[in-house]
Amino acid sequence: MATTKTTTNGALLTELGSAALVETLHGELFRRWPGSADRVRDIAGYALLTPGKMLRPLLLIAATEAVGGDGASVLPAALAVEYLHVATLIHDDVIDDDELRRGRPSVHARYGMADALVTGDFLILSMFSTLSECARQPAATLEAARVLAVAGADVCRGQAREAELVGKLDCRIADYEQMVALKTGALFRGACRAGAILGGAAEAHVEAVTRYAEHLGVAFQIYDDLLPYLAGADRAGKPKTSDISNLRPTFPVLTGYLDATPADRQLFDDALSGRMSTQDSYRLVSELLDRTGAIERSRARAGAEIELARHDLAGLPGTAGVALLTAIADLSIDRER
Amino acid sequence: MATTKTTTNGALLTELGSAALVETLHGELFRRWPGSADRVRDIAGYALLTPGKMLRPLLLIAATEAVGGDGASVLPAALAVEYLHVATLIHDDVIDDDELRRGRPSVHARYGMADALVTGDFLILSMFSTLSECARQPAATLEAARVLAVAGADVCRGQAREAELVGKLDCRIADYEQMVALKTGALFRGACRAGAILGGAAEAHVEAVTRYAEHLGVAFQIYDDLLPYLAGADRAGKPKTSDISNLRPTFPVLTGYLDATPADRQLFDDALSGRMSTQDSYRLVSELLDRTGAIERSRARAGAEIELARHDLAGLPGTAGVALLTAIADLSIDRER
Repeated sequence: MATTKTTTNGALLTELGSAALVETLHGELFRRWPGSADRVRDIAGYALLTPGKMLRPLLLIAATEAVGGDGASVLPAALAVEYLHVATLIHDDVIDDDELRRGRPSVHARYGMADALVTGDFLILSMFSTLSECARQPAATLEAARVLAVAGADVCRGQAREAELVGKLDCRIADYEQMVALKTGALFRGACRAGAILGGAAEAHVEAVTRYAEHLGVAFQIYDDLLPYLAGADRAGKPKTSDISNLRPTFPVLTGYLDATPADRQLFDDALSGRMSTQDSYRLVSELLDRTGAIERSRARAGAEIELARHDLAGLPGTAGVALLTAIADLSIDRER
Repeated sequence: MATTKTTTNGALLTELGSAALVETLHGELFRRWPGSADRVRDIAGYALLTPGKMLRPLLLIAATEAVGGDGASVLPAALAVEYLHVATLIHDDVIDDDELRRGRPSVHARYGMADALVTGDFLILSMFSTLSECARQPAATLEAARVLAVAGADVCRGQAREAELVGKLDCRIADYEQMVALKTGALFRGACRAGAILGGAAEAHVEAVTRYAEHLGVAFQIYDDLLPYLAGADRAGKPKTSDISNLRPTFPVLTGYLDATPADRQLFDDALSGRMSTQDSYRLVSELLDRTGAIERSRARAGAEIELARHDLAGLPGTAGVALLTAIADLSIDRER
């Protein structure tokens, strides 16, 4: 961490650039999670030390610098957000019985359900011990901890909400959006808000990055829903039939169903009835999404949300932070995984 | 909460007594977890609103008052510890597939595995948002949050450690003790330590309640291990064969095996081979524990730990708090559930 120790206020991004920052974050993870004699720590290391995008830590650091704060001082908080995110992935994979994550065996596939449960809990708790390293500003750190705790709790509420919507092709887009705001948006919001608070932001700036994060969350999830249907895309090492086989509500399918002819609606119903093979369902749904224009409508909606997100950044003082937040927004709807 | 608002420093226990304090805690839980339209909050309420002993919240409040602090000011922290405890119970029951908890269907038996996982996560996260209500002293609260996060992480490590010891009749008592210090002791330690820190204790007093909690943890777990073999006992609504059928390492069995004749060792092996019916195993193990004197040796060891725990309380300034910590210690080896 010699690189970051010399950094002064707001200069982490300027000095490093975002690619080097991801490398710094990975390096810091490797340093903190060496092989050990402790089973849970080892499994946590297995789950953390993957070539992940580090999106949420980047958001936190970028938000800190966007409001004029010092990115180097919030590195522990950035890692803490990743711990929470990875914990939810581990538990998600248990719930969905998904055997692949980031192209490797998921934690429960490799270590069993019991250890996956316990390691997820361990990582959630590690989030708070790591956060408390920012104890030089106890009041701001405590508020950041509260914000992240509420965000994490919202993710849980979103997961339960999603389960209630499973298989409901006729659920309202508003229900989907509410679920996504919790399941996906909450952690983006938590990361940005915590970053701004730790950066000493004025209330108006905290609210601005919060709104940015909310739009980003919707766009990100819609694009994530789209990925299985885009040529060349690979969705974080997960099979592209995962949403279909779990009958998860997704934006393209909901919007496609809404605008489909009665005959196509019947085909949607057939594809998601659970009576077809997963591969056949997937092929039929792909065809229907094309035909109903749902792919294009989903892209357009995601693009519109990104416009709103970019707009919210106007007026923030930290140039490098704003540049990274903008780049993340643009990339979120132009990626292959 | 009108009763507690008027309380001044250190007087919560004097004013209320411990039975009334448990009632206050239950009342506060009911107030905070009303029926709602939110599935996860409702399930969390189901798990929390049981006639539990509230042992860990009582420890936290008693520790605060034992060091001379104000018990009423740490009520949110006391509830927070119960959230963490209940979360670990919910996840434990998923892992062991135990269908009963506190005499009612466990969360996963009633709501399914997915909701049990998510609700446990939600409660861990709620611990930290609730803790942050003590924000009037941000530095102490942040340190208490760190202490509880480390304690919770230790519980996870203890659970994984226990799983590694399953079925190992010849594991060393030292391995068992190390596992118990994590699985059971950590949360007692966390509750007492957090209570003392929030009570503004001097370092020596924080260490004293920490040592108290460590001895209490060992005694509590040994007595918990004994309960299935004591007449009239009912172990928190769980079947008394639960340890046997899960081949969990327990103090009476380990110490009985250690001192058994070769013939009795063979019988222990048979009983825990998984080839007998659970009822037959249970009957045989009960007989062996009696014959080898393991029941009495376990009682004696638990009693010795409680003596050490009581000893650690000497010199703490808060009379009412010390009295409750002493009463909890005594009760921990003289209870029926």
